[in-house]
Amino acid sequence: MPKLRKQELPVLAVDLGGTKVITALISNDGGMLASETCPTLADEGPESVIKRIFAAIDHLLSLRNMSPSQLYGISIASAGAIDVGKGIVTLSPNLPGWHDVPLKSIVQEKYKIDTFLINDAKAAALGEYHFGAGRGAKNLVFITVSTGIGGGIIIDGKLYSGASGGAGEVGHMTIETEGPRCSCGNIGCWETLASGTAVAKEAIRRIRGGEKSSLIEMVKGKIENITAKEVSLAAQNGDILASEVINKAMNYLGVGMVNLVNIFNPEIIVIGGGLSKMGDLLFEPVRRMVAERAFKLMAAAVRIVPAQLGDDAGVFGASVFAFGQS
Amino acid sequence: MPKLRKQELPVLAVDLGGTKVITALISNDGGMLASETCPTLADEGPESVIKRIFAAIDHLLSLRNMSPSQLYGISIASAGAIDVGKGIVTLSPNLPGWHDVPLKSIVQEKYKIDTFLINDAKAAALGEYHFGAGRGAKNLVFITVSTGIGGGIIIDGKLYSGASGGAGEVGHMTIETEGPRCSCGNIGCWETLASGTAVAKEAIRRIRGGEKSSLIEMVKGKIENITAKEVSLAAQNGDILASEVINKAMNYLGVGMVNLVNIFNPEIIVIGGGLSKMGDLLFEPVRRMVAERAFKLMAAAVRIVPAQLGDDAGVFGASVFAFGQS
Repeated sequence: MPKLRKQELPVLAVDLGGTKVITALISNDGGMLASETCPTLADEGPESVIKRIFAAIDHLLSLRNMSPSQLYGISIASAGAIDVGKGIVTLSPNLPGWHDVPLKSIVQEKYKIDTFLINDAKAAALGEYHFGAGRGAKNLVFITVSTGIGGGIIIDGKLYSGASGGAGEVGHMTIETEGPRCSCGNIGCWETLASGTAVAKEAIRRIRGGEKSSLIEMVKGKIENITAKEVSLAAQNGDILASEVINKAMNYLGVGMVNLVNIFNPEIIVIGGGLSKMGDLLFEPVRRMVAERAFKLMAAAVRIVPAQLGDDAGVFGASVFAFGQS
Repeated sequence: MPKLRKQELPVLAVDLGGTKVITALISNDGGMLASETCPTLADEGPESVIKRIFAAIDHLLSLRNMSPSQLYGISIASAGAIDVGKGIVTLSPNLPGWHDVPLKSIVQEKYKIDTFLINDAKAAALGEYHFGAGRGAKNLVFITVSTGIGGGIIIDGKLYSGASGGAGEVGHMTIETEGPRCSCGNIGCWETLASGTAVAKEAIRRIRGGEKSSLIEMVKGKIENITAKEVSLAAQNGDILASEVINKAMNYLGVGMVNLVNIFNPEIIVIGGGLSKMGDLLFEPVRRMVAERAFKLMAAAVRIVPAQLGDDAGVFGASVFAFGQS
């Protein structure tokens, strides 16, 4: 086999999420050569999760009979607040115990190759921009609506990172000044009102308050097991409480979306994450509110569309991020 | 006199505001060769205001004994929502009667030279970036807090305009979902809660509700004459009602500022406009709230500083905009 130039080697991309870890081998032109998924088991804490990441990387390499030296690099998209300059996961609400974990250097020392670390929503923004719903756009805002609300901003075809790599934390804009306290320390953040967690909390609160809903039977009386998935399913089946809870959250989602339209005047807003799978239940109210409330010129200019890459957006984006650093 | 190359000719810049029109001759290197100010008398409507702009331009040219052909072009920074592509003032809350006024072509036809039109807050952002408080930064968010709240965003040294030239309407992000209706059609916009108009309205509302304040004497009982200027003066003199009104508005100002820090992770936020003249009364609570509530890395990265160019930011920025279009 002829020796490949570095740019021809694949990236081993890792998407470290609160529930699962995806590993993938991705070539410079976006070809996915292999991919595996394993559970994060985040509750076991960082040491255990990092061992599991090592095992996943080793397994993927062994499947392809490759050594680390045959990689362009390893690129990790991680949930949480990332200090890109230092390669540190500073804090991650969905990864218990992760405080200032120098993940980049830990992986780099283990495999002795270039390693990259980026926030998972920013990676997904890059993935959707290069290979998904955002292809061909100049400016794009990507939103992921799941446990929380994450975001990534593409301006002039490049990820906008800001002064210290943190830009795009749109889930932590206050849309309700007297709203709920957020785990980030701020108040009335968008994600406290419009995320999957917000949907589940509100349904549980109302049912515990004595209201009736088919959700109770759906979770066999274990109210605490209700997630946004059950609420959206119940709403689609005509459950009134579930519909009201979803409508309220989608109203809040629309409020934040209007903010993003008025601030960024984007060509396209791509919405991914678990809640985007609700389809019209999410997109209809959000598009309507943008049409009603945003500046007319900007409302007319924006397309609000579902993400296309699903769970793979993070690994695709992580590979783009790595190749872009060369 | 030798014939000058086009880039060596000055721009005649016009800042069209709700209360005054500033005209200035500005060279490519930011030298201000001449400047005049006249009242807008906006209540007389667009036709009358446009005649006054023509008179101001003619007067400035005659002062320098110049003809329009000796200009690089005319560049207008206007209050309101601008359709940059079409050169139209689509709507301007502070310019009564201005609906879809094709100001660019009106001026261009009159003077037969290149004419440019840009929103006044975006122009001020460019002005502060090139010649004022933002020099040397890479990314900057400019906010003007006066009658309303306007904004301009500089990314990688360039004005970020978005898909249709409207980006940066930060004054129209909702920070209070059930807040007051805004003239833009949205609800709970930042400017309905933290602008000079919001300050005056709240003081008037409370005094009309029977509360005591030195403001009443200050305006000789004409409550309707209270503006943010009087409220800030009264607050500085220890008036309790005025202090409470200012504190409430500055709290809201801080809430929106935290949003901008979490979204843009800017190096610098430059605050101009009438209310920025309050100094510590504005900057102290805003900086404190950003330190308390924004993501730590991003709060640490941002400087929040007063604008330096005062009323001239708009004309300086309009000239930068014109020269940048060549």
